[in-house]
Amino acid sequence: LLKRKTCNVEIISIGNELLLGNTINTNASWLAKRVTAEGGLVRRITVVEDNLQQISAIINEALRRRSNFIITTGGIGPTFDDMTVKAIARAIHRRLWLDPEALRMIKDHYAKRFPNKRLKLTRERLKMAMLPTNASALPNPVGTAPAVRMKIRRMEIFCLPGVPREMKAIFNASVADQIHNEAGGRKFIERWIKVTGIMESNMAPAVEQTMKRWPNVYIKSHPRGFHRQRPTIEIHLSSLSSTPEEARMELSAATKHLLLKLRTLKGRVNTE
Amino acid sequence: LLKRKTCNVEIISIGNELLLGNTINTNASWLAKRVTAEGGLVRRITVVEDNLQQISAIINEALRRRSNFIITTGGIGPTFDDMTVKAIARAIHRRLWLDPEALRMIKDHYAKRFPNKRLKLTRERLKMAMLPTNASALPNPVGTAPAVRMKIRRMEIFCLPGVPREMKAIFNASVADQIHNEAGGRKFIERWIKVTGIMESNMAPAVEQTMKRWPNVYIKSHPRGFHRQRPTIEIHLSSLSSTPEEARMELSAATKHLLLKLRTLKGRVNTE
Repeated sequence: LLKRKTCNVEIISIGNELLLGNTINTNASWLAKRVTAEGGLVRRITVVEDNLQQISAIINEALRRRSNFIITTGGIGPTFDDMTVKAIARAIHRRLWLDPEALRMIKDHYAKRFPNKRLKLTRERLKMAMLPTNASALPNPVGTAPAVRMKIRRMEIFCLPGVPREMKAIFNASVADQIHNEAGGRKFIERWIKVTGIMESNMAPAVEQTMKRWPNVYIKSHPRGFHRQRPTIEIHLSSLSSTPEEARMELSAATKHLLLKLRTLKGRVNTE
Repeated sequence: LLKRKTCNVEIISIGNELLLGNTINTNASWLAKRVTAEGGLVRRITVVEDNLQQISAIINEALRRRSNFIITTGGIGPTFDDMTVKAIARAIHRRLWLDPEALRMIKDHYAKRFPNKRLKLTRERLKMAMLPTNASALPNPVGTAPAVRMKIRRMEIFCLPGVPREMKAIFNASVADQIHNEAGGRKFIERWIKVTGIMESNMAPAVEQTMKRWPNVYIKSHPRGFHRQRPTIEIHLSSLSSTPEEARMELSAATKHLLLKLRTLKGRVNTE
């Protein structure tokens, strides 16, 4: 039986504030958790500047890596340094045009938010409706700028806003299902074990042996400091298998195997 | 007068937990803030898996981009999936050897932490002392695994642990000064302005004009939601100039210019 390929996802976060350390990239970790929950596998997260060339370059790199999905956040608003869509159009050699569907979404948004005003469609506002040909606008239920979806060969690019509330709403409404379908029933299952009194270097052979025996289960130890000279380690076990039953079965067997090995060492093991 | 080049820094975060969304990458944002404060410029942050090939590939990519510094976090501990140093050795075609200085640091650490025990130097513990030839071990004042420093052509690679407390201590003790020296007096200065009642799309032209007039000053608007139909925008102004005086002068002039422009629009402007 040929194993189905994993559904690979790449996240590209765009914004100088992330590279200055002024903003912690919680967008990327939120997306990573959601993608994982839908059965996808995040292979890389990259943060780049608000710079046309840099964004174009990273999109080309990502396309060469042939991930099934590329999700960008940031850079789709009305200001001059919102240039994600333009940079992608350049990378994939498409022209920008005033997308009628995107324009309708922007007009509707302003009409709803300011029912008593008639906002002019300035250059900055029209900019948010300039999409590459063959792209489609995705509704933004909580903000102005529509998100953008493009298909390049067999890969899909989704451009989401950088404002967390908008990014989350659009991912849940328009992206999650696509990943779920592409993942085709794959299911991610995880479990934590807490161990005190055993050093990471002492438990390493038990972890390695368990992973060799259950190759679909990934096990990683995270040292969480010392308490009265006793080390505390959290062990994370996870499995991404073709079916939920398989994932659950393998994870449970691997956990049992690891616990057995750990209990031969001196320490306290808590399963959570 | 020829402007000195910026001191470019790339951060590479290694660890599956970051790609699963189980851990928020606060290491990268802490490092970005510190590097910026020392006058360096973070150009890219990448998160990759605990995978020999993937880590090797990203190191090669980073070396091709010719940043002055590459800082990695994670993957230098005692377990089999700690493979950062091995992957870098492979990327730069160097062999690993048992580094006597690194071995001494590890022995000293165990002797101090467990004065009454004599810990065996198992395979897992010796692994942390296996460095590429020509690399040097950097002391870890709060943990076991020494950090690693390598020079490749004119670039420096620093491999720091993933445990935040250890990463921070080693950066402050052994990396910060190197960046400061390479940045050669460059200074980053920043300022925030809070604006209510003006939409981002309405203030965009004022921001753009100010940046055209003061090209060393970067201005970015961050929408922070609505309060009673009035939008709140935080504007970040920053400058990385050759000298602190120049940075301060330019930032102050640009701020004045922007405030003047914003006050012609209807809204409330607070400088902080």
